Order: sequence, then structure tokens, then C-alpha cells
Amino acid sequence: MKALVYHGPGEKTWEEVPDPTIQDANDVIVKIDTTTICGSDLHILKGDVPAVTDGRVLGHEGVGTIVEVGTGVAKFEVGHRVVVNCITTCGTCAYCRVGHPSHCQSAGGVGWLLGHLVDGTQAEYVRIPFGETSLHSIPEGLSDEEVIFVSDIIPTGYEMGVLNGNVQPGNDVVVIGSGPVGLAAMVTAQLKSPRRIIAVDLDDFRLEAARRSFGATHTVNSGHEGWMDEVRALTRHGGADVVMEAVGIPATLEAAFELVRPTGRIANIGVHGAPVTMPIDRLWIENITMTMGLVDAVTAPTLIELIEAGRLNVRPLATHRFGLDDMLEAYDVFGQAGKNSALKVVITS
Amino acid sequence: MKALVYHGPGEKTWEEVPDPTIQDANDVIVKIDTTTICGSDLHILKGDVPAVTDGRVLGHEGVGTIVEVGTGVAKFEVGHRVVVNCITTCGTCAYCRVGHPSHCQSAGGVGWLLGHLVDGTQAEYVRIPFGETSLHSIPEGLSDEEVIFVSDIIPTGYEMGVLNGNVQPGNDVVVIGSGPVGLAAMVTAQLKSPRRIIAVDLDDFRLEAARRSFGATHTVNSGHEGWMDEVRALTRHGGADVVMEAVGIPATLEAAFELVRPTGRIANIGVHGAPVTMPIDRLWIENITMTMGLVDAVTAPTLIELIEAGRLNVRPLATHRFGLDDMLEAYDVFGQAGKNSALKVVITS
Repeated sequence: MKALVYHGPGEKTWEEVPDPTIQDANDVIVKIDTTTICGSDLHILKGDVPAVTDGRVLGHEGVGTIVEVGTGVAKFEVGHRVVVNCITTCGTCAYCRVGHPSHCQSAGGVGWLLGHLVDGTQAEYVRIPFGETSLHSIPEGLSDEEVIFVSDIIPTGYEMGVLNGNVQPGNDVVVIGSGPVGLAAMVTAQLKSPRRIIAVDLDDFRLEAARRSFGATHTVNSGHEGWMDEVRALTRHGGADVVMEAVGIPATLEAAFELVRPTGRIANIGVHGAPVTMPIDRLWIENITMTMGLVDAVTAPTLIELIEAGRLNVRPLATHRFGLDDMLEAYDVFGQAGKNSALKVVITS
Repeated sequence: MKALVYHGPGEKTWEEVPDPTIQDANDVIVKIDTTTICGSDLHILKGDVPAVTDGRVLGHEGVGTIVEVGTGVAKFEVGHRVVVNCITTCGTCAYCRVGHPSHCQSAGGVGWLLGHLVDGTQAEYVRIPFGETSLHSIPEGLSDEEVIFVSDIIPTGYEMGVLNGNVQPGNDVVVIGSGPVGLAAMVTAQLKSPRRIIAVDLDDFRLEAARRSFGATHTVNSGHEGWMDEVRALTRHGGADVVMEAVGIPATLEAAFELVRPTGRIANIGVHGAPVTMPIDRLWIENITMTMGLVDAVTAPTLIELIEAGRLNVRPLATHRFGLDDMLEAYDVFGQAGKNSALKVVITS
């Protein structure tokens, strides 16, 4: 089959590799119908994720059709359409059983296997370990494009932003970073009926998208001095009830420390590569809660139901479409998302 | 009356000052029967709390007898024995009404008034603003010494450590710092039936007290290299379910970042004077929750009921006793708590 293969920092090819085969009774082989590219794939290509080794097929998001199941798989049959969970979930370890497969112990304490420690979804076929607990059925009538983002980015925004941040009806919510993850947090924050969703970014295209399609009630460009005062002026209590960080650099997390109100919550969603200075000398007295984590994606079935019910529309994330054989071009476009006014790319076989 | 008066950094006197009088319909005048000294009083004397000005009577903890009530006070009468809440609570602002009087808006956004922005409890008499919501009745049969620590330190350990840290039955709990606040966290953590309470300190006297009287199941002296490995070896998951920081310096909070398990909680209790470096580049993926805050002391009535029911015994905090006129000597002993093997001093009129 053809697959997108990592060959060390900066090196990737769309090349012929052996088809995946059942290795374990719980495995499921999925023919990929639709996949996408994640910001973390770009991190891998920069060499930021050393656990990814030469020869690895990338990708942890996908919609596909089951073509083979292991002898231990009863829940799915050949022909089922499924969403691939970005987090592989054994379902039996101490972490999976309390809803934290992000720390699944069956693969050494990390649930992110696909395109990381095992071959991933940017390919014609993928082997899904622990298939029964790592794939989700797609209801009749939903297109691939309606559910592809449930693989990762929508649960990431919802679980790490909205649920960890404990967004409540009437809250003022600030989302720092209006890239795909920030937009996913905004669109799912609406499920909790906040009073305001204030989108922050340097890019006016993204801010316009946030307002048009993802529920932002206000937008603030953080490219000028005084932007934090502008945000504060939009809140009732001198700061936000919930601040979500969806960038992953010290400056934006430090901004979150500035923008949260007393008794508020800071929900970190960003993937960070450097430590941050926390002003605990000022914050210790402010009754702040701060959360952080890798997505578990345990809300994926609920999110699919909300999409089916018409209560959640995540399709506007898809701005560019490619065929599977145009994978390298899709990477080029997504890798320069700003220049290309791209949010997420959809890649279909 | 006599009172302990602050006269700028390093300067305090036990001197004659005017008796407090009713200034507002909601005021209550309390004759202090028992008071104590808090670590934050020592901070004030070092000049760390510039809001405290020359001439202020210090102290925010006390047990006493009501001698006068304002015309707006219906709940209490002269002669009632009460515990003074360290946080003054208007009961009507947006913060008080959701259980966060630590940010009471009626006094400019801070609920800590006594011995800070108004005259406090280290005196023969004290004026308590918003008396109905800032004083607690003492049930018959409970001595002053049984309830004096409900003014501040016991709710501080319980609310900022145990409740914020969401201690659950079966948890492994690490408390870094076994001074009075850490011990208050340990003794109230027992209410949630953790599996282990691991006390950490540099002082073997405090560690012995933690084990003997405050529920610590294990103690670790942090004065030697490898102490963190010793703590980890006492936990089941390579770290604690809950780590409480009860010191207030960067090194101990940074230790908390090291000792928490994936999906665990860090509950900051310490009062900090310097920023801390948070290793968000390592923690972002660990699904950690971190909390911090000034005590609200809204649990004081419940804690008094638990003491009355025999389910909570906080008397072992009292190691030294003084008369009110020996206030300066009490400060000397508490100010060198380590040398004097002191935990809390009890000062009785």
C-alpha cells in the first residue's frame, strides 16, 4: 500500500510499504477513506518527538471501513464504517477504566500510539490495536467530513478546554489561539452556553473564522499593545471565568495567568516545548484552578451523537481537500496554514 | 484595652489602645478569650505585607464572647461564645454568595480584613464587621482550645488542601511541609480516608508530630538527596494522587511538580513570595490539575460539628500556652518555632 513515511527530521515520503496485518486477537484493520494532518505531525517532522523513529507511518486521525478483524473482536464486523480514536485504548488498565486512556498502561503509559509508536492513519490501511475500544461506529447518514475531526481535535478542545475548564452557562470564556484546536474549543464551548466566547489570535483570517463559524462572540487581535486590556474590558469580573490556552508557548500561557479572574480556571490545551514562569506569588491568593493534559477522546461517541443530532457542526474546520495521493501537497498547504488561509485539510481516498 | 500593635517592619508593642466601638449596624464587638499567632503575622512583621500600616492591631484568629452587637445583628446576642472567622464575609456580594468570601467585594476584593486592613484579634476586644456571617457559634461543652484553630488554620488545610486537592478514599497523599498548615491538611485529609498520608519536612520533631497526632502514615525527611525517590516508592503509581504544598517557596512547589502522578492533583496551600518555574513542557501531557487560593473558611461550621462529634481532634496543634499579657513572649516562642519545638501557641485572657 501507499503511506506517508517519516524518515527523520524534515524527511517524509509518500511511498509503497507492506500492508498491515492482524498481529493480535484484538486488532482491526481499517481501510482509510478520509484522514487529515495534525499540528503534532508537523512537530514530529521538525524532530520534536524523538520517540518517532525512521520508517514510521504518520497520522492518528481517520475515518474508514473495517476490512479485517482479529479473533477477539466481537463488536465490529467487516464493512463497518468507523472513526479512529487518536488515543488507543486497551479498556482494561487502571487508567482506561477511569476514563484516562491517554495514560493507557498496556502500551507503556501512553495512549497515543498511532503515527507515534506504531504505524498510523496517513496510509491506505491501518492496523488499530485494541480495536473494540479504539474505534467508534458512524451513524447512517453522516459523511466522513462531518466526523473526521472527532478523531482528535474536537475531543481535544472539548475535554482539555471545555470540560477541564468547567465552562458553565453564563461564563465569560477567553480562548488564546484561534487555530484549529482553539476553534474546536470554541465550537464545543457553545454546548455549555457561556455568555461570551472571546477569540484571541494574531491572524485576522482565523479571528474572522472564529466569529463566523465557531461561536466566538468577540475577537481580539493580540498583535498590538493593550490587547489584554481589550479582553478584560469584555469580561464582567476584571478577567475571564475560563481562559483556554491553545497555542503552546510561554507567552500565551503567561497571558492566561493575567486574564483569569479570581476563582477562575485556566485550561491548558497547548502542547508546550519550554517551561513557563508561573506568578504563584500573585496567584496563590486568587483561588485559581489550572488544568492540563493529553486528550483521552472518551467523549468521541457523545460528540458523534451531538453531530448527528444537529447540535454541533464542525465541518467549517475543513478548508482544503486533497486525494490520498496528494498527501505531500496537503502537507505543504497545512504546513503553511497562515499563508494558505487553511484550517484543517481533508484527505480522501 | 491592651493590644499587639504593628509599628512597621520588625516593630511591635503590647500597648494600650482605645477600645473598639460599633461603627456599622452589622458590627459585633467580641471580648477575646483565646487567640493565637499565624505564620502570616510573622510575614507582616518582616514587612512582607505592605497593606498593613503602622498602628494596626494584628491577629485574625480568636475565640471570644460577644459583648455588644449592632442594630442590624439578629443572629447573635451578648454573651454568645463564638469563633472568629479569619475571613470577614459580607454574605451578599457575588463572591460571598458562591462560597468565596476570600474575594469579598464589600471590602475591596479581599476577605482578609482582621489584622490586615482593620484591627485584629490579638487584643482584649475586637470589632467584627459583618458579624452575623463572620462569626460561628460554639456548641456547649467545647473548650476554646478545641475550636481556636477553626478560625483559620484548620479550614486552610481542609479547603485549600483536602477539598481543592479532591482527596478520595484510597488515595496516596503527600504533604510537603509539616508545619501547622501541613499538619492541618493531614488531620483533615483523614476525613476522606486516603490510603497513605506521607508527611515531608526537614524537621524530625514535626515529622514525629505528624505521625503521632495528625494521621501521617509515613514520614520522609527531605534533608537528604534521594528523598523524592523515597516518597515515590511509598506510592502506587510512581507518584501521589494528591500533592499538597504547605511551605510557600519555589523549591517545594517544584517538588510537587515532580511527585504528582499522571492524572493527579497539586493543591497549593503555601503563601508564596516568588514566581515558580512550571515544567509545562513535561506536565502538559500528564493530565494534572493544580489549585491555589486563600482560604474561604466557609467550612468552619462543619469543622466545628466534626470536632463536637469526636471525628476531628485538632488540639495537638497547641504546644505552648500563654496569658494575653505574655503576648510578646508568645511571639518570641512562635517566631523560633523550630528551636522551641513549637507548633501553635495558645494565648488566653
